[in-house]
Amino acid sequence: MARKPGSKAEITGPRIRAAALRLFARHGYAAVSMRQIATEVGVQAGALYLYTPDKQTLLFELMRGHMEDLLAALAAEVQPADPVAALEGFTRFHIRFHAARSDAVFVSYMELRNLEPANFARLEGLRRSYEDRLEAILQSGQRAGQFAVPDTKLAALALIAMLTGVNTWYREGGRLSLATVEAHYWDMVRKAMGAVG
Amino acid sequence: MARKPGSKAEITGPRIRAAALRLFARHGYAAVSMRQIATEVGVQAGALYLYTPDKQTLLFELMRGHMEDLLAALAAEVQPADPVAALEGFTRFHIRFHAARSDAVFVSYMELRNLEPANFARLEGLRRSYEDRLEAILQSGQRAGQFAVPDTKLAALALIAMLTGVNTWYREGGRLSLATVEAHYWDMVRKAMGAVG
Repeated sequence: MARKPGSKAEITGPRIRAAALRLFARHGYAAVSMRQIATEVGVQAGALYLYTPDKQTLLFELMRGHMEDLLAALAAEVQPADPVAALEGFTRFHIRFHAARSDAVFVSYMELRNLEPANFARLEGLRRSYEDRLEAILQSGQRAGQFAVPDTKLAALALIAMLTGVNTWYREGGRLSLATVEAHYWDMVRKAMGAVG
Repeated sequence: MARKPGSKAEITGPRIRAAALRLFARHGYAAVSMRQIATEVGVQAGALYLYTPDKQTLLFELMRGHMEDLLAALAAEVQPADPVAALEGFTRFHIRFHAARSDAVFVSYMELRNLEPANFARLEGLRRSYEDRLEAILQSGQRAGQFAVPDTKLAALALIAMLTGVNTWYREGGRLSLATVEAHYWDMVRKAMGAVG
């Protein structure tokens, strides 16, 4: 019999990913068993293996999914434009995207050490693509005389670290709204890159 | 009989801390047992309990030691001065101190979730002291009209994240020396704070 849309088997994938992400973020990859993930989802451990061959693949697919979503959202939301406008778009996009996914951001940074070499290399490739998008904005502004940056590669890494850092302290309902945080960070980013125009 | 300086019992503390830090950084606190730490040190598990009552205390003492070393080194190396000079001193100090201690930095960030509430609160107090030192520099520069920062608290957090980020990519012997990295970051920090003078 063909499976009906919305059947139990079809919704298990997202539920498994959400449960694994939550448990990895709370306890760390090495400390979480496939059995615990199954319990969190409410299925038998055997059912997990219909979805993923092993825990390493589950971790890698979570991290790869996070980076691919990031790259796709960046392409959709930050259009090629004047370099200063593109840098503002990138700044605001990065803060918003990451603030909404704190578990995925934490796991993506923390569990790099637990990726097998081939998976690590694939993830580093995706990460470099994202850094390259920002560096391309900085280089085009540099060429147009709109930015003054001593080293565009270094500047891209510095800005990404600064913007991702919002996740370590930002809480919804805190002293500042996310829109205010974005505006204040854009002020610092713009000045740090010596932006003109 | 009184213990002689340099006896086995006296050198065990630093060796236990070094082994625990290495194992926590590689595998995560939750995945490392006291027995594994003892094996890494080359002592019986029982000997570990002469040094520390439990694994939680060992983790907390590592993280507390790291923050106290950081605060003491900052006080010794970055003297009160003109705000721009103090900010440059802070920038270069932060990069150098953290680049030399990548395992401690990684564990201090990653294992916050594994601290018991009272230990977490004490560590957050130390962390806030460090952020406050930087914010005080920014505030004094702001009062003197030498910096133009929309929010000094936010700026302190942004700069610390940016500077600590060096640890995620810097490798000795890479494309840039640490002195060059310091100089490039200082250029960005100075501009980001709208520094005059």
